[in-house]
Amino acid sequence: MSRRALVTGITGFIGGKLAERLIADGWSVDALVRPNSDLSTLPYADTVTFHQISDGQDLTPVVGQVKPDVVFHLASLYLAEHRPDQVGALVGSNILFPTLLAEAMAASGVTRLINTGTAWQQFNGADYLPVNLYAATKQAAEDLLLYYADAKSLSLVTLRLFDTYGEGDKRRKLIQILVDAVRNREPLAMSPGEQIVDLTHVDDVVNAFILTAERLFAESGQLREVRYVSGERQRVRDLAEMVGRTLGQKIPADFGGRPYRAREVMVPPAPGEDEMVPGWSPIHTIKSYLLGTSA
Amino acid sequence: MSRRALVTGITGFIGGKLAERLIADGWSVDALVRPNSDLSTLPYADTVTFHQISDGQDLTPVVGQVKPDVVFHLASLYLAEHRPDQVGALVGSNILFPTLLAEAMAASGVTRLINTGTAWQQFNGADYLPVNLYAATKQAAEDLLLYYADAKSLSLVTLRLFDTYGEGDKRRKLIQILVDAVRNREPLAMSPGEQIVDLTHVDDVVNAFILTAERLFAESGQLREVRYVSGERQRVRDLAEMVGRTLGQKIPADFGGRPYRAREVMVPPAPGEDEMVPGWSPIHTIKSYLLGTSA
Repeated sequence: MSRRALVTGITGFIGGKLAERLIADGWSVDALVRPNSDLSTLPYADTVTFHQISDGQDLTPVVGQVKPDVVFHLASLYLAEHRPDQVGALVGSNILFPTLLAEAMAASGVTRLINTGTAWQQFNGADYLPVNLYAATKQAAEDLLLYYADAKSLSLVTLRLFDTYGEGDKRRKLIQILVDAVRNREPLAMSPGEQIVDLTHVDDVVNAFILTAERLFAESGQLREVRYVSGERQRVRDLAEMVGRTLGQKIPADFGGRPYRAREVMVPPAPGEDEMVPGWSPIHTIKSYLLGTSA
Repeated sequence: MSRRALVTGITGFIGGKLAERLIADGWSVDALVRPNSDLSTLPYADTVTFHQISDGQDLTPVVGQVKPDVVFHLASLYLAEHRPDQVGALVGSNILFPTLLAEAMAASGVTRLINTGTAWQQFNGADYLPVNLYAATKQAAEDLLLYYADAKSLSLVTLRLFDTYGEGDKRRKLIQILVDAVRNREPLAMSPGEQIVDLTHVDDVVNAFILTAERLFAESGQLREVRYVSGERQRVRDLAEMVGRTLGQKIPADFGGRPYRAREVMVPPAPGEDEMVPGWSPIHTIKSYLLGTSA
């Protein structure tokens, strides 16, 4: 009998790639989606069973019906900087929703949860200091999930992600902005660029989720861990030059053309080997990705 | 000019006593209350300016209008054990509300916040392990408030409380249950009673809030602290016998007549002297309280 996954955040970049991989690996995949999600264009739309759920809804009926072997929680509302009227949405999406998910798991005898966190929970290398309210809501979710792990014996692994990239990424992320600037030969106002970024290809991130699921199956006891998915670390300046070099063009970047953002992360946390996902190492490189893009 | 306090949780036991003390000390007091709160019977009803606010409401207009010198945040939804349909209310009251409060403070240039936590955030002496979902929501709130403390330069002190007692307490708490059992000579089924409880008289708790406010005024820089309000520690068995002895009656308790509750706290965290509110020590004793009650 095939394994059954319940995925949240499937309409997002990483969640979508994870779903494709799970299907390719023979899992049956159910997904929790918002009623207003556009699912028609998803490549796996016929293969996945979608469950529409609304804000604050009790998830026990759907989790109890699906009875997944593993819940992959990737849904989140990401806001680098929030407006005051977005506080409720951040708390609803990033705190209340995972809590209701864990509550439903505990009520349904579903015991394996992979949660998604962010390296931005550790501003300036602190054990905990959030870069922004988004990162604080991620920490809060971990706090709440720990209750279920301890009191309801859930196996819980949180993967804290850094920046990610990959084919088909519709988010306007750094690498894509750099590639577009080189291609369009349009001047790009950038920060001074001394900050370090930590980048992992989405397929490697997906591998980290799959490996973690395997560990949850292999472990007879309970796992309760935070693990990092840390990839290539580069100064933004060096990354920009590398993008230009690899694509055979000088990058038209104006470093210092805009200031650093408030609370810019200059040095992301640097997890030790023993804090990473065991057995995981990235296969993809930014360079090979760029060569693929330029082809 | 008198100092201005904005109090949440004023209809609760500790919040009400704090408001009385602030008024007696010459503060002007504003309070955020729910629309359905019954305020008519409050002794200070004529002295306090009440602001009715509904769930999820933007608090910037009211905080900006009141412009308090200190915000005393005591409102909370306490549930020793929650039902699945109460998860939303716990997150709304204990996480979203204080976040909206801090957001409004940051927007209004209000910088001093005293938050209320619980010793139950530290089950079995862990740095963080919540006894119940209530305690987890308190931890989550601390983690969200830390964002505002760091990014918006709020001065933030969280007072983590243990059990409290005092005259006029309408909560059915241990001491009152014991007193009633002695008075009514009715057999009381109790747990085996080996757990330790940590009890502080409400007037001493109020003192801790007042002292903390003084520290916020005296501090030229920013405070960012967690402080404990820990009082008399006793085994439940010993406490019960002391109640009987003090009231001149054998306590009709049947120890072991009911089991410990799930996740019973056997030994509460024992904060060191340097983790307590500086300059604070309890004045009231359980014994003097009991002698007062029996008069």
